[in-house]
Amino acid sequence: MTDMPAIATDLPAPDILRCAYMELVVTDLAASREFYVDILGLVVTREDDDAIYLRSFEEFIHHNLVLRKGPEAAVAAFGFRVRSPEDVDRAEAYYRALGCEVRRAEEGFVRGIRHAVRVQDPLGFPYEFFYEVDHVQRLAWNYELYGPGALVRLDHFNQVYPDVVTGAEYLEHLGFKRTEDIQDENGVVYAGWFARKHTVHDTALTGGDGPRMHHVAFSTHEKHNILYICDKLGALRRSDSIERGPGRHGVSNAFYLYLRDPDGHRVEIYTQDYYTGDPDNPLVTWDVHDNQRRDWWGNPVVPSWYTEASTVLDLDGNPVPLITREEPREMDVTIGADGFSYTRKGDTDRGFKLGNQV
Amino acid sequence: MTDMPAIATDLPAPDILRCAYMELVVTDLAASREFYVDILGLVVTREDDDAIYLRSFEEFIHHNLVLRKGPEAAVAAFGFRVRSPEDVDRAEAYYRALGCEVRRAEEGFVRGIRHAVRVQDPLGFPYEFFYEVDHVQRLAWNYELYGPGALVRLDHFNQVYPDVVTGAEYLEHLGFKRTEDIQDENGVVYAGWFARKHTVHDTALTGGDGPRMHHVAFSTHEKHNILYICDKLGALRRSDSIERGPGRHGVSNAFYLYLRDPDGHRVEIYTQDYYTGDPDNPLVTWDVHDNQRRDWWGNPVVPSWYTEASTVLDLDGNPVPLITREEPREMDVTIGADGFSYTRKGDTDRGFKLGNQV
Amino acid sequence: MTDMPAIATDLPAPDILRCAYMELVVTDLAASREFYVDILGLVVTREDDDAIYLRSFEEFIHHNLVLRKGPEAAVAAFGFRVRSPEDVDRAEAYYRALGCEVRRAEEGFVRGIRHAVRVQDPLGFPYEFFYEVDHVQRLAWNYELYGPGALVRLDHFNQVYPDVVTGAEYLEHLGFKRTEDIQDENGVVYAGWFARKHTVHDTALTGGDGPRMHHVAFSTHEKHNILYICDKLGALRRSDSIERGPGRHGVSNAFYLYLRDPDGHRVEIYTQDYYTGDPDNPLVTWDVHDNQRRDWWGNPVVPSWYTEASTVLDLDGNPVPLITREEPREMDVTIGADGFSYTRKGDTDRGFKLGNQV
Amino acid sequence: MTDMPAIATDLPAPDILRCAYMELVVTDLAASREFYVDILGLVVTREDDDAIYLRSFEEFIHHNLVLRKGPEAAVAAFGFRVRSPEDVDRAEAYYRALGCEVRRAEEGFVRGIRHAVRVQDPLGFPYEFFYEVDHVQRLAWNYELYGPGALVRLDHFNQVYPDVVTGAEYLEHLGFKRTEDIQDENGVVYAGWFARKHTVHDTALTGGDGPRMHHVAFSTHEKHNILYICDKLGALRRSDSIERGPGRHGVSNAFYLYLRDPDGHRVEIYTQDYYTGDPDNPLVTWDVHDNQRRDWWGNPVVPSWYTEASTVLDLDGNPVPLITREEPREMDVTIGADGFSYTRKGDTDRGFKLGNQV
Repeated sequence: MTDMPAIATDLPAPDILRCAYMELVVTDLAASREFYVDILGLVVTREDDDAIYLRSFEEFIHHNLVLRKGPEAAVAAFGFRVRSPEDVDRAEAYYRALGCEVRRAEEGFVRGIRHAVRVQDPLGFPYEFFYEVDHVQRLAWNYELYGPGALVRLDHFNQVYPDVVTGAEYLEHLGFKRTEDIQDENGVVYAGWFARKHTVHDTALTGGDGPRMHHVAFSTHEKHNILYICDKLGALRRSDSIERGPGRHGVSNAFYLYLRDPDGHRVEIYTQDYYTGDPDNPLVTWDVHDNQRRDWWGNPVVPSWYTEASTVLDLDGNPVPLITREEPREMDVTIGADGFSYTRKGDTDRGFKLGNQV
Repeated sequence: MTDMPAIATDLPAPDILRCAYMELVVTDLAASREFYVDILGLVVTREDDDAIYLRSFEEFIHHNLVLRKGPEAAVAAFGFRVRSPEDVDRAEAYYRALGCEVRRAEEGFVRGIRHAVRVQDPLGFPYEFFYEVDHVQRLAWNYELYGPGALVRLDHFNQVYPDVVTGAEYLEHLGFKRTEDIQDENGVVYAGWFARKHTVHDTALTGGDGPRMHHVAFSTHEKHNILYICDKLGALRRSDSIERGPGRHGVSNAFYLYLRDPDGHRVEIYTQDYYTGDPDNPLVTWDVHDNQRRDWWGNPVVPSWYTEASTVLDLDGNPVPLITREEPREMDVTIGADGFSYTRKGDTDRGFKLGNQV
Repeated sequence: MTDMPAIATDLPAPDILRCAYMELVVTDLAASREFYVDILGLVVTREDDDAIYLRSFEEFIHHNLVLRKGPEAAVAAFGFRVRSPEDVDRAEAYYRALGCEVRRAEEGFVRGIRHAVRVQDPLGFPYEFFYEVDHVQRLAWNYELYGPGALVRLDHFNQVYPDVVTGAEYLEHLGFKRTEDIQDENGVVYAGWFARKHTVHDTALTGGDGPRMHHVAFSTHEKHNILYICDKLGALRRSDSIERGPGRHGVSNAFYLYLRDPDGHRVEIYTQDYYTGDPDNPLVTWDVHDNQRRDWWGNPVVPSWYTEASTVLDLDGNPVPLITREEPREMDVTIGADGFSYTRKGDTDRGFKLGNQV
Repeated sequence: MTDMPAIATDLPAPDILRCAYMELVVTDLAASREFYVDILGLVVTREDDDAIYLRSFEEFIHHNLVLRKGPEAAVAAFGFRVRSPEDVDRAEAYYRALGCEVRRAEEGFVRGIRHAVRVQDPLGFPYEFFYEVDHVQRLAWNYELYGPGALVRLDHFNQVYPDVVTGAEYLEHLGFKRTEDIQDENGVVYAGWFARKHTVHDTALTGGDGPRMHHVAFSTHEKHNILYICDKLGALRRSDSIERGPGRHGVSNAFYLYLRDPDGHRVEIYTQDYYTGDPDNPLVTWDVHDNQRRDWWGNPVVPSWYTEASTVLDLDGNPVPLITREEPREMDVTIGADGFSYTRKGDTDRGFKLGNQV
């Protein structure tokens, strides 16, 4: 990629608070509303014929998710909130210095947000930075509105990109702290997790053909909330929306579930990772052959989870072309004929659980 | 099987209270002790060089599980408690009338139990009936001894037998109530669940080559207790003991987990089925093609769960020869090239979740 | 009470399956509907201008609770289901032999039930016995309808009566098994718990002026369901409906919460007692001075819980006059100037938690 | 207090990461060990004849709690971790500029920490600031060591001080963000909550005679973990260690339990407050008369919770004299003859739950 923008500059990075919202393009707004509102119970802040603005129960900013009607399913923006209006300016200058496409919208790109900047970042992803946002009621105490699977916070994004080392370098320059990663014995990096707020991540990089959006994750308070979402999907005869899990992650130590929305966008439901706010928070590096790295219980990662992801759009709304991963792929080195995984390092008797293979 | 004993008699059946204990033959007593005591936290009532007697936290009879050292892994007895000493006599007469092999042990076949009768039942399984048993402390209130995954009750047995219709007829004559079953559109019965106490089952029949023991199940209070057992197995680098789950059953509506002990004996951890004590408790019949019947979330049943089970012993301690199932097998009609399953009946677009297949 | 009917007869007792429903007279049907349906989430089987029929999520009979509009709050019936139509006849004969007022309604006393018998029992309580009942859908699998505090079963009744010894004798003749009781060092019995199904009780006797109805109890699956009910009542600014708890009972080992409905009828929410189905299930006797008997955590029992209860009606709908308890009262011997309670028997330094007294 | 140091200076405040540890002086090290290690399950990092160093399961720094043997129960230090060694220098300069007593220990005041500064702050509390600390194994994944009530993080301190307005001003200058407070209609401030990390607080001020230490709080993952701690204390016949709760806070929306250790030091167990990391996080102000402010379920706050607290020591180890609160006291305005509380503002029929009063 000779034309790739720089990934670092000496200019100060904007002070990013946290991942704040994702704008998803969906092909059937009613079907998406049924999924995110009727089934998952996200709270509608605003809706019109073109878009639905949703938030989680503990959120006080206007939205954590925008569903916008469009011809092809895609991701239009990964929205990050920054500490101040000046940090929006810093973001604008930072990405211009990198040579990226940058747009500014004083009235905001979406409702409820003003004075925002969108960029196509050096990896090709559409990032938005904003500070000014409408405050709405934090419904944390409104238990009369909670369902059994209530989503209380937006937790993180996950991005697919072929070169995790370069992507990590870019994010670390931007001020993210790496908390965990997956590597092999040759130093190949398969994935990395990167935080601004005090959790394991605000975003992650998953090695693969990209740029694509792997998933967006919402938190529940407890594990039983996640189990209930599965029970409800079963009751609605939509269990085929469950792609993977529920289970315990090795990475992040969180309890998880992966769903696919009506357009195939992947949504994770997530709870109980750990505090990472200290500057010397210990980095955890997992061996790609450790069969408990992605599921602590050794349950298999389904192939679709490795291979499928959502298109991302550039600032003109066009799909960003994919770059092929050239390094080994995690699925190839862990599943099937050429793969090798272990439950106990050095124990070659049993790899991952063969009973799970048809 | 021309020599098969009768499955019914006009004599009164013993009044069975509940499944009460299983006697497992294990090849390495120390390894089994580590699994059942150190990992699963069952309470040791008694142990010597040859056997360990274990109970659950809410039990007040001597044991729910006997681990006996032996040369080959097997099941020596499915123990049922009956209402009175007279019911032990009734059991003896009942099985003699059926033409079964019957043994009586006034001093008991195992420690803690007296005046017991063992039979090789018409299906070939070693059943024990007893009333007299040592009472031990019910540790229900001894929270200082509970671990995070505490097993509080023995819930049920599950037996593999080729002819579920005949097996069900036998159990129903013996006084069991059928609560649920799995059938296909041709009336083939793949499995059935049978209760004496007020839960979904004290034992179940799973269609397959048998007689074999499919699993023995213990209850926890809540679902998080089961999740913890998985977390602990991961921490001990024994996640390959997890064969299937955790998940929500369709049948029984319970939350479940299947483990394999060091000998391969299958143990289920189970919680929250429903009350079945009324005589007209509605029978629930599941379609074998319903992909949510065994896992409400549509997660795949691993092949080993269908095909592997424990040898059962006759009253002389010899393995009981297997009878081959002649009817269609559940695995064959639901997984893979010849299988067909649905999430939504009549919706032929998607069967079970293909993402799960390698 | 010279005219008190006999409490025992040689006639066979009806085979009672379980407590099945309570008929409450309420003064404001809309207010009661808001409490039981909108807040607690019970399922409406049927409703008209005079009555609402409610059931829990795992129930398959027509109702577990009838709310009937009337001029004064009261209890019209404690409904028990029996094993067969013949057991209804047995109930009729049994109570006639005791000298009780007995009524039979072939069309049923309430909708959904037929061929029922109501009696004013020797203690003065209106008991109903029935077998024939409309089956309705068991909603156990209908998770799309569950709220976070879903009530899944009717668990038990609790009755206030002055002479617990006599009351217990009556119930034991009727076939109930005593599972737990509270006594003092002089053998005074303060309360007893009595079971037919395999739980700690289908009904209980609480010593006090009676006959009155102390509470009716519904089960949830897990403890967090009960905590949620409190959270929701707080969100609705109805926390003053919470009378006592949540907490862990000593007696029964269950997790509990006591609410008061708009008429003051007490409702318990309850989960996780233990199996009691064996005939030799060990009786647990608690010392009335043991401060953990009613709350395992030693939290105080509020006075209203001891003193307030609902009027019960005779078969003509008239309030049954109260008989005064002549033996010591539990509240008097455990709270305040004359009371003495201990956390550790023999440790006289600290009684119940004084910090709790204003 | 004419000699009170200044509460603000123009010098830069140290960048405080989080509350990190408390040093408690205890009178019986073995009794304290039993409480914190055997009962609560904190992890021993190090112990000798004089002191025990404990940490929570997700911690990676040397300790969250130091128990030091001494003649009188007291608090020797509230330890805060800062972002860098330079921030320790900033703390030293900052407090010197305020006119406070300041000590520096290059070898640390306790084991595992170096280059630390201790001050007696303007309110009289012994604060410590440090960056350099031994890293120890983060046991987050070591589920084999977890008990059912595992404490996973130190969450916050709570300090008693007479003048909350002045105390808040001091903390806000020091860089803390106020997240919630309790006021009355006259603007009297009864308590305030102050955060550095992204939770509701790292420390709080409770109005009362002070300076004293009100409590130190540890987090669990879920609510059932807290309930288990109560169950275990009951099983150990130590339920009188439970002072208040469990319950749901209004303030913070967290689930809570208050215990008293063998010396009377108050320990809170706490879970599930909300994210507060944005600079414009909405301040929540509670009415002191709102009976759900401290317990969302309206359960009473016991008087001892308001009146008792731990002595704090100056840098020479002497008890800091108390200053009397001159403004109204929360207990006086909410409980008893002169108090008035409401469940529903404007509803004067019912105040707090009278059933709770003896």
